[in-house]
Amino acid sequence: MLLYDTLRSGNAWKVRLMASLVGVPLERRTLSIDRGDLAQPAFLAVAPLGHVPVLRLPDGTHLAESLAILHYLAQGTPWWPDALPAQSSVLTWLSFEQDRHMKPLAQLRLLLALHPGGDPLGATCIAHARAAHAALGVLDTQLARQGQDGWVATPDHPSIADVALYPYTCMAPMGGIALNDYPAIRAWLDRMEHLPGYQALFPGQPERNLSTQEQP
Amino acid sequence: MLLYDTLRSGNAWKVRLMASLVGVPLERRTLSIDRGDLAQPAFLAVAPLGHVPVLRLPDGTHLAESLAILHYLAQGTPWWPDALPAQSSVLTWLSFEQDRHMKPLAQLRLLLALHPGGDPLGATCIAHARAAHAALGVLDTQLARQGQDGWVATPDHPSIADVALYPYTCMAPMGGIALNDYPAIRAWLDRMEHLPGYQALFPGQPERNLSTQEQP
Repeated sequence: MLLYDTLRSGNAWKVRLMASLVGVPLERRTLSIDRGDLAQPAFLAVAPLGHVPVLRLPDGTHLAESLAILHYLAQGTPWWPDALPAQSSVLTWLSFEQDRHMKPLAQLRLLLALHPGGDPLGATCIAHARAAHAALGVLDTQLARQGQDGWVATPDHPSIADVALYPYTCMAPMGGIALNDYPAIRAWLDRMEHLPGYQALFPGQPERNLSTQEQP
Repeated sequence: MLLYDTLRSGNAWKVRLMASLVGVPLERRTLSIDRGDLAQPAFLAVAPLGHVPVLRLPDGTHLAESLAILHYLAQGTPWWPDALPAQSSVLTWLSFEQDRHMKPLAQLRLLLALHPGGDPLGATCIAHARAAHAALGVLDTQLARQGQDGWVATPDHPSIADVALYPYTCMAPMGGIALNDYPAIRAWLDRMEHLPGYQALFPGQPERNLSTQEQP
């Protein structure tokens, strides 16, 4: 299958990570936001929502939004559990990620690392930092509740909720958000990075993409 | 089942609307944000994420986040289709709603109608208005593509994506976002409001909750 992504998109990284964890090979077509690729008619024809990631499926149709792509790739695997209560829990945490977790962390990474020029002490960054810490606090509490070897939404096997929450949590320090005060999160990041098939944002680079000197 | 909600929560309205459309009776426990109910230990014990809606399931567990609750209530009905391609499409549009649609519309409603005092010409409201119109443009294009009697994510029967996208679209004018330029959206709102089991935010009030004089 063909994945439309960008070099640094955390949402596209979720998809590559998921595919690698379930052993599905992906071909990448890596677009450049700076070059305007995402506004080109050729991309908009396959991606009416105008964002990466987009996955071309074997039947030639295209699937957008990482949440939907993770669900698709995880079919028939324990990453999307069979039982309704487990599915409900996975969806709760996928929703939390989209609604409260990803945005402040992604914005801080953008303002302070990818397109530096944001003022870390300005009102915008402070508001994002407050929201980011609130979300990380909720996540750390949940992980602590799930036990030492637990996963975000499911007890025995990681789910697509772990894959969805991993990239922007892992990259939080790029946006000035230290993870020192979240021991359950740090242990979980470590467990994720030791899963067979784990794939870094830039394979071959140091394992956690924590540096603000992120280079492809 | 018991639903924890607030009077004006659009996310809780999604759940009441879904339950009513599939004929599931709900008991309501309506909390007050102003009174601080959502910060009370009694609520946090059933809602670790600290938000409404939360649904108490028949087994006594609690399910949070409207996306997960809609999926739960729609099991065994056409509102959550059986086929994977249709499920994928539904999840794409649920993700779009969470990521790009709900927030600017909800923020404008908050700043200009529920807790008036926001400056409609200030930078914050203008940024939200731009994001809201971008999202409504995407939605209108999709609905036009789905045809005159179509639904957001699925061709023949509405899905939980329609239920998720309805409340904040319908309330857009409360935040100063007119829907005049979105004919496919206006026709779809009308189709939603004629579905058997449709339920308004405040049943008994005028059908669309468009007024800025929203009163319970």
